[in-house]
Amino acid sequence: MYGQLLLPELQEMLHEQDTAGLREFCDALHPAVIAQVLESLTNEQICQVLEYCGLHRRVEIVEFLPANRQLELVRGMDRVQLLPLVQEMSPDNCVDLLEQMDHGEVEKVLQLLAQSQRIDIRRLLSYPERSAGSIMTTEYASLPGGITVGEAINQLRLQAPNSETIYYVYIVDADRRLRGFITLRRLILAKTSAVVDTLMDKDVISVRVTEDQEKVAQLMARYDFLAVPVVDQQDQLVGIITHDDVLDVLQEEATEDVQRQAAVQPLDESYLTTPLLTIAWKRGGWLMFLFAAGFLSAHVLQSYQKLSKVYEWLALFVPLVIATGGNAASQTATLVIRTMALGELNKESVPRLIKRELLVGLILGFSMSLCGFVLSQGLITAYQSLVVVTTIPLVVVAGTMIGAVLPISLKSFGMDPALMSTPLIASLLDVFGIVLYFNVALWVLSR
Amino acid sequence: MYGQLLLPELQEMLHEQDTAGLREFCDALHPAVIAQVLESLTNEQICQVLEYCGLHRRVEIVEFLPANRQLELVRGMDRVQLLPLVQEMSPDNCVDLLEQMDHGEVEKVLQLLAQSQRIDIRRLLSYPERSAGSIMTTEYASLPGGITVGEAINQLRLQAPNSETIYYVYIVDADRRLRGFITLRRLILAKTSAVVDTLMDKDVISVRVTEDQEKVAQLMARYDFLAVPVVDQQDQLVGIITHDDVLDVLQEEATEDVQRQAAVQPLDESYLTTPLLTIAWKRGGWLMFLFAAGFLSAHVLQSYQKLSKVYEWLALFVPLVIATGGNAASQTATLVIRTMALGELNKESVPRLIKRELLVGLILGFSMSLCGFVLSQGLITAYQSLVVVTTIPLVVVAGTMIGAVLPISLKSFGMDPALMSTPLIASLLDVFGIVLYFNVALWVLSR
Repeated sequence: MYGQLLLPELQEMLHEQDTAGLREFCDALHPAVIAQVLESLTNEQICQVLEYCGLHRRVEIVEFLPANRQLELVRGMDRVQLLPLVQEMSPDNCVDLLEQMDHGEVEKVLQLLAQSQRIDIRRLLSYPERSAGSIMTTEYASLPGGITVGEAINQLRLQAPNSETIYYVYIVDADRRLRGFITLRRLILAKTSAVVDTLMDKDVISVRVTEDQEKVAQLMARYDFLAVPVVDQQDQLVGIITHDDVLDVLQEEATEDVQRQAAVQPLDESYLTTPLLTIAWKRGGWLMFLFAAGFLSAHVLQSYQKLSKVYEWLALFVPLVIATGGNAASQTATLVIRTMALGELNKESVPRLIKRELLVGLILGFSMSLCGFVLSQGLITAYQSLVVVTTIPLVVVAGTMIGAVLPISLKSFGMDPALMSTPLIASLLDVFGIVLYFNVALWVLSR
Repeated sequence: MYGQLLLPELQEMLHEQDTAGLREFCDALHPAVIAQVLESLTNEQICQVLEYCGLHRRVEIVEFLPANRQLELVRGMDRVQLLPLVQEMSPDNCVDLLEQMDHGEVEKVLQLLAQSQRIDIRRLLSYPERSAGSIMTTEYASLPGGITVGEAINQLRLQAPNSETIYYVYIVDADRRLRGFITLRRLILAKTSAVVDTLMDKDVISVRVTEDQEKVAQLMARYDFLAVPVVDQQDQLVGIITHDDVLDVLQEEATEDVQRQAAVQPLDESYLTTPLLTIAWKRGGWLMFLFAAGFLSAHVLQSYQKLSKVYEWLALFVPLVIATGGNAASQTATLVIRTMALGELNKESVPRLIKRELLVGLILGFSMSLCGFVLSQGLITAYQSLVVVTTIPLVVVAGTMIGAVLPISLKSFGMDPALMSTPLIASLLDVFGIVLYFNVALWVLSR
């Protein structure tokens, strides 16, 4: 909303080289607002505007730009422009940027940095994608034990410029092992002479550096934390993950799940900025596979061709029968996959879930069967409609069962249940539905 | 993970009425952990455990319980147990609880409260569901202008017990209009003699009390805010929305979208706690509608029965053709709906999106057509396969176009684009695909 109003003004200021106006634009607005406006400009124009910002503000703005624009900007910068930028960037954002570059480019950037920062970033880069380590920042506030609240607040003042948050403070021993945790709120409320150790929470909830980012996000969503500490295999504090990172992870994971479920290989960036051919490629693989699998239905239909020659009306209801099975299955699969994504399904509830889906399938199947009897009048005789009416409950129950069992089994093999996409389940149900339908027909019509 | 380990221990302590043990259990652990363990107990047992907690801790634990358990607990409490609980609860959590009760129950609870609190909660209850007002809390920290940093910190100490956060502080004038915003971090770093007005951000980003909760969540995700202020129509500060509320909103909205897209009317609570009949009902409506609509395909197929009598092999490819159209359409619809849910699609990008989907449809359609020619050998002659090969690109392009245009039009009418569920689009494509296929057949086979 904001962006569209400010853009023409900004372009005019750039055209007129209005130094005072551009300075004010950089200073007065929230960096995220500025980034939103800048998105509509060319990379050259963005660089021009950024010249009017102080270094700290410049970095803030760049960090709020979309990943692909950050990359383009950085690629266009020379050594002199790049050095202060990467030095000032927070390590996690710097790593996000570097992860998009090829090996040669990464090395070029790393060579610009001082050794300590280089080691820091190399370590962050070494954590596997989607692990806690890959989204954490090393800029956290920590204190030794045994000091007073007054001393603690003084130390925090010194640490603040290099900490992503000072609202959550971790107390560590000489080996950087987590001993406790205290909020700035509690520090502010306490007497300055009190000893931090007596006030801190000793039951600190932390995550391992190798933990899956989705698990971390679920944990933080449950506990309403502002940040969670990350420890390595030796239980030493190595970083923190903050609430904004978790929001991004949850959005990203939800987007990926939804794409997988529609048989799209997850896009790495926003749909609108992904190149056309990448989209075609990420969709084509699954679509082609499902298409090839679809020929199975043609082969199966062929094997019943004798029957459908005698009873021509049978062919009329094939799309209806298979769509019904597919719809019931995709409802179940979607509910089950989302429940697992929210971390709500545990092993104990699986048998209950299967039983419920069986019952739901029966209830829905028989109601639709009744409705089908009425709707099929005019198309076929009442006796013929027995075929449809008998098949429907069977195919619906098959749908709810397959829709529940497949994602759960996938998960139990350690795979992403969302891989069991709706179209994949539907095409399984296509074949299954055809076989069921013609066998019911054989049975009913032979009496 | 935690919960399962602690449960047997807790049950033993309850059995032995181990006062010291239960007290420690309540004090030492994070309230969210305790709530997780308590979930496995009966309501009576939960009440028993809560007896061992101080009031503040008791309320914290109850607030972390799932909504349906909170309701059950509160319903089982007498006046004496209930009064301190609702008095101590934060207004937004209290409102969440009351929203699940019927009118009579709400009035009974409200009568327990002091007038000021009652007015507060009545106002919160009056905001429409899913608005910023319905998720905000009225317990925020605010300061008048013109005071020094030292005075500000002292005032915050007094406000802390009744503020959900003191990390974001809002500066208001005598009419409670927002004049600025400052973080506790900046206050801590500043000289105690500095005047707050010189340090505060004057460009405060706020939301209206009537704003849609999803919009608020998108805003906070973009700006990485800990909290955002909520103002009424007179621009007066009435509440704040904090980062943890936003996480809940995003999860809830993602769940609903995913359910809608699978043709399930959104469940109000978790899938596992929703009663069986409610699930059947929420799925049955759509399933039945799609089933009835499915008879359209039978009628359409009937109108081509003459043709399929002459060319019996035509019926073999009906499921394949319609599934392909449906799959392409649901890929597009899912990508488009998610892009809109993330707030990334604006009016300007719509024509570009449609053009892209047209191109993707053509690329995918023609590749599949080629592949279809090969796969159909053995089933039909090369000449016959021309019918399938010609239909596929048409039905895929129809799929991508319908999949893109329908959700966008729904949105432009102010409706939720996710209502255009995958099964609904697929059943449209069923009918459309059959018509296309038989008309292509008529055209090709008549030469």
